[in-house]
Amino acid sequence: MADRDDLAALLAAPPTATRRPTVPALEDVLFRPFPMLDHGFVRVIDYMGDDAAIVQAARVSYGAGTRSVSDDRGLIRYLMRHRHSTPFEMCEMKLHIKLPIFIARQWIRHRTANVNEYSARYSILDREFYLPSPEHLALQSSTNRQGRGDVVTSETAAEVLHLLRRDAEQTYATYEHLLNDEGPGAPVDPGLPQLARELARMNLTLNTYTQWYWKCDLHNLLHFLSLRIDHHAQYEIRVYAEQIGALVASWVPLAWEAFRDYRLGASTLSAAEIAVVRAALTGQDVEAALAASPLSAREKREFRARFLEG
Amino acid sequence: MADRDDLAALLAAPPTATRRPTVPALEDVLFRPFPMLDHGFVRVIDYMGDDAAIVQAARVSYGAGTRSVSDDRGLIRYLMRHRHSTPFEMCEMKLHIKLPIFIARQWIRHRTANVNEYSARYSILDREFYLPSPEHLALQSSTNRQGRGDVVTSETAAEVLHLLRRDAEQTYATYEHLLNDEGPGAPVDPGLPQLARELARMNLTLNTYTQWYWKCDLHNLLHFLSLRIDHHAQYEIRVYAEQIGALVASWVPLAWEAFRDYRLGASTLSAAEIAVVRAALTGQDVEAALAASPLSAREKREFRARFLEG
Amino acid sequence: MADRDDLAALLAAPPTATRRPTVPALEDVLFRPFPMLDHGFVRVIDYMGDDAAIVQAARVSYGAGTRSVSDDRGLIRYLMRHRHSTPFEMCEMKLHIKLPIFIARQWIRHRTANVNEYSARYSILDREFYLPSPEHLALQSSTNRQGRGDVVTSETAAEVLHLLRRDAEQTYATYEHLLNDEGPGAPVDPGLPQLARELARMNLTLNTYTQWYWKCDLHNLLHFLSLRIDHHAQYEIRVYAEQIGALVASWVPLAWEAFRDYRLGASTLSAAEIAVVRAALTGQDVEAALAASPLSAREKREFRARFLEG
Amino acid sequence: MADRDDLAALLAAPPTATRRPTVPALEDVLFRPFPMLDHGFVRVIDYMGDDAAIVQAARVSYGAGTRSVSDDRGLIRYLMRHRHSTPFEMCEMKLHIKLPIFIARQWIRHRTANVNEYSARYSILDREFYLPSPEHLALQSSTNRQGRGDVVTSETAAEVLHLLRRDAEQTYATYEHLLNDEGPGAPVDPGLPQLARELARMNLTLNTYTQWYWKCDLHNLLHFLSLRIDHHAQYEIRVYAEQIGALVASWVPLAWEAFRDYRLGASTLSAAEIAVVRAALTGQDVEAALAASPLSAREKREFRARFLEG
Repeated sequence: MADRDDLAALLAAPPTATRRPTVPALEDVLFRPFPMLDHGFVRVIDYMGDDAAIVQAARVSYGAGTRSVSDDRGLIRYLMRHRHSTPFEMCEMKLHIKLPIFIARQWIRHRTANVNEYSARYSILDREFYLPSPEHLALQSSTNRQGRGDVVTSETAAEVLHLLRRDAEQTYATYEHLLNDEGPGAPVDPGLPQLARELARMNLTLNTYTQWYWKCDLHNLLHFLSLRIDHHAQYEIRVYAEQIGALVASWVPLAWEAFRDYRLGASTLSAAEIAVVRAALTGQDVEAALAASPLSAREKREFRARFLEG
Repeated sequence: MADRDDLAALLAAPPTATRRPTVPALEDVLFRPFPMLDHGFVRVIDYMGDDAAIVQAARVSYGAGTRSVSDDRGLIRYLMRHRHSTPFEMCEMKLHIKLPIFIARQWIRHRTANVNEYSARYSILDREFYLPSPEHLALQSSTNRQGRGDVVTSETAAEVLHLLRRDAEQTYATYEHLLNDEGPGAPVDPGLPQLARELARMNLTLNTYTQWYWKCDLHNLLHFLSLRIDHHAQYEIRVYAEQIGALVASWVPLAWEAFRDYRLGASTLSAAEIAVVRAALTGQDVEAALAASPLSAREKREFRARFLEG
Repeated sequence: MADRDDLAALLAAPPTATRRPTVPALEDVLFRPFPMLDHGFVRVIDYMGDDAAIVQAARVSYGAGTRSVSDDRGLIRYLMRHRHSTPFEMCEMKLHIKLPIFIARQWIRHRTANVNEYSARYSILDREFYLPSPEHLALQSSTNRQGRGDVVTSETAAEVLHLLRRDAEQTYATYEHLLNDEGPGAPVDPGLPQLARELARMNLTLNTYTQWYWKCDLHNLLHFLSLRIDHHAQYEIRVYAEQIGALVASWVPLAWEAFRDYRLGASTLSAAEIAVVRAALTGQDVEAALAASPLSAREKREFRARFLEG
Repeated sequence: MADRDDLAALLAAPPTATRRPTVPALEDVLFRPFPMLDHGFVRVIDYMGDDAAIVQAARVSYGAGTRSVSDDRGLIRYLMRHRHSTPFEMCEMKLHIKLPIFIARQWIRHRTANVNEYSARYSILDREFYLPSPEHLALQSSTNRQGRGDVVTSETAAEVLHLLRRDAEQTYATYEHLLNDEGPGAPVDPGLPQLARELARMNLTLNTYTQWYWKCDLHNLLHFLSLRIDHHAQYEIRVYAEQIGALVASWVPLAWEAFRDYRLGASTLSAAEIAVVRAALTGQDVEAALAASPLSAREKREFRARFLEG
């Protein structure tokens, strides 16, 4: 695949001069792949804007009205707190990502990004497939239908990994056989057919790696991260989201700090939950207030977990 | 899966009265699955609007200005010809589609639709995978990097199908083993672990069937169809597009006729091609005009195929 | 304009039979204009889906996984609470709205809807402009740069309305003069020019009424309503949002109830605010907790208003 | 307004070093306002990507499959010709634009951009309104309901401009009176009320200038330009589109050349028109072919204008 082709050249090229906003901390890691899972990576290809660009766009909207907000940090926190999303749309990040296909299928559901994915109609996918490390092989959760429970034993892990590897190797060998394309040490067999690539690919398993360029504005990127950094997100996409979060933190540190305080660490209370908190903060016993509320049993459990338990 | 659960009930339910635009030809096929490939289908779940709704929306925009267009057909053709897209956005169709995952991955690239896909994090995918019929097993095209060439011989077809079936059956058997879930005649083995569904699914091949609800406005639906009915589209998505096209034709016949004349059967000429046609239509020899043009060799070939050859 | 043309015909037409989901409470008000401000209105032109359609789409996604959620209401509340947005995208509402241009400019910032607006390039705008009723003429707020403060005195109101009416009448008279188009009792003056409509319109004031068809899926409609029903929204858009909210409540009552509980009446607490609530609910004095928190003075004021004050 | 505040500082600031793609021709005009109409401007605030970034994204998609396309120019022309839109989405441009409100209302209909507009709820609009130059004051077209015909006489122009200026000055004076805000040489009158800004603005005419930051990816920007550079577009938006086109040409010259050849200068032929061209190019008389075709009278006129007339 193309992912290693130009890296050395890009890293070696001398910088050029620009009058655009530039973020040295992000320039330092530009083009550098951060390894993810067993064969994946994330790397920043380009970016537009910085914390000051958010402020600049907000000041166009609000004109003289923003003079009273004393500084950039205060304005960015105000915008984040009150969900003024458009100024954050004025920054943009372009990433090159390599990831297993079953994760790519989750990721692509976020429709507000621009994507160029490696095409297995045109080209041949590498022999690379995701095998979890044993500590990430978990049982089906008994309480959460879309979640994981306990980690499997080491014997189970060994068996699972054996099966996953065996099947991925076999399906990939079939894929290569059907393609009958030249490869390292594998010339075309002139006596055999070359099946169309767009057909042969159907035999690959969903843990095969693909890659894409993915470009997103900061507002929609933060929305993506808020969903995918969440502990309900599948581990295999969460690690990507956490790495991208670290890159965003070095790119727009003020926006990231505001995002962490007002979004990632925040929690939305329903009308009924607010009533319970009000009652409890103005003198009523919290358990009595919970008992008197219309909250469901599940909501009460969640309330206690959030506010009352260690 | 849920695809057969409610069908009989839906088909048996008595109709209700509405003052909304209703299209009897589409009502006749509502909820009815049209089989696609070996296990897939398309069926209409709901729709909004009709040909008259397109006209009605256009008349809001253009007010008294549309009085001169004598009839609905003329106005719809005018709108299509001049790429006035917004009146077509006023109609909406909701489909239930069952399709192989590698086709779903192409399909989802159209970002302007609403989608609810069956989740293999929550639920278990059925043992259904796409195996092409022999006449659709083709060699890699030697001239088009993303296309198919000749159909394979019957011996090759038999071998290819044997390999695809063998691998799909094996990977699905592994999936079931890892899930260790109860099934028809297959109780849970209490001595074995139940791997998390979100993990086990990675072992499935890309020809496994998935399904989704897919809702799209008519403008974006026609754009999707123009790309996927095209002969460059992969056969396995083209059959879906053709079936949906037939449904659209029964739903909004005037819009479909205009689409066929001005979009599907249309062709865009570059500035240089227009100059060649002008020259040829005003007296010059067409080959001389081609020779004098800046068209590339490939563009000249395409020009001849379009206008000069049988 | 076209807004009254077909109403009688639509209301008089007999209903037709459909197998699509139908909502009698919404059928009852279909096509009927609800007056807004002094010359505006909102009316429902069409709709797709109902509460059951939300559930149906969710069940496709979650398959057998939703069996444990006992009923439709519980599932819809679960979806709303956990911000599962895609099932709500499966319903659609089409409205015909007449509104002042300065409000249309706010409204159009919501980009996920389909719009056909009356075109003043093609057609002539009616002599209708918004004049607030005296109780909605308010002073600039001294505390909120984008808000209103006290209502003006009746003398001031009379003067303001005099000026607004005078200027709107004069600019509209100029508009008519420049157009020199035939009208009721006003034939074309053959000795005078007819200025292009696309130019003459620039002389109209921003309180002139325009109208459009506006179609939006339920998820994005609720997002629009959450911003525009809010008390920070400008009064002149809020009245439209409240009327649309009432229509949504009669269309999808379960979704509306969930929206009211988990979105309209909800409140998001920042990480620091959660810490204060936790401290206060587990024994600490709330004022001491606030004093120890990193909340800004403004955030503390808002916290007290939300949880401690009448 | 904010438009002149920081310009000198931005232009004077020293460049910084970046490893991102940089386009010297665009750096040269960065931040510099290009005057438009009588008070408007366009200026580039930021950009992401260049011609090579388009190629780079395409090569991720097509992998080794693009090796056969010998050079960047050929690949970009291929992508444009075959409407491969996603690689062009990988470039982004951010503009600061000042424009009359009635043009802003046309512009905002393009929904795929990011926008921060000056808010007249927060701040006070300047006393600036568009008055066309006499050579752009035209009569309503007698053949095109949304177009302009002949330019008016100089006497008419003088009268039209007098009326437009008179009304704009009067409505702005009323606006200032209602606001009663401090200004240059105009202190607040403590005896008079200060009407809420969100209300006072409704008295302004549609030729008042507003401004915004507008950010768009290259694919959608080219789509916008193809509609707004067209001779059917209103003059007052076309001048902006032409200026932005010149900026795009200096930014991504290969993409611009391809766009000019395959989009701006191109023309789409319907199925029936293709049949006429085929017949005429293979020996039939073109008028006989036209007569035998199902083309409408209007389509025949357009065909002759395109291919047969000077």
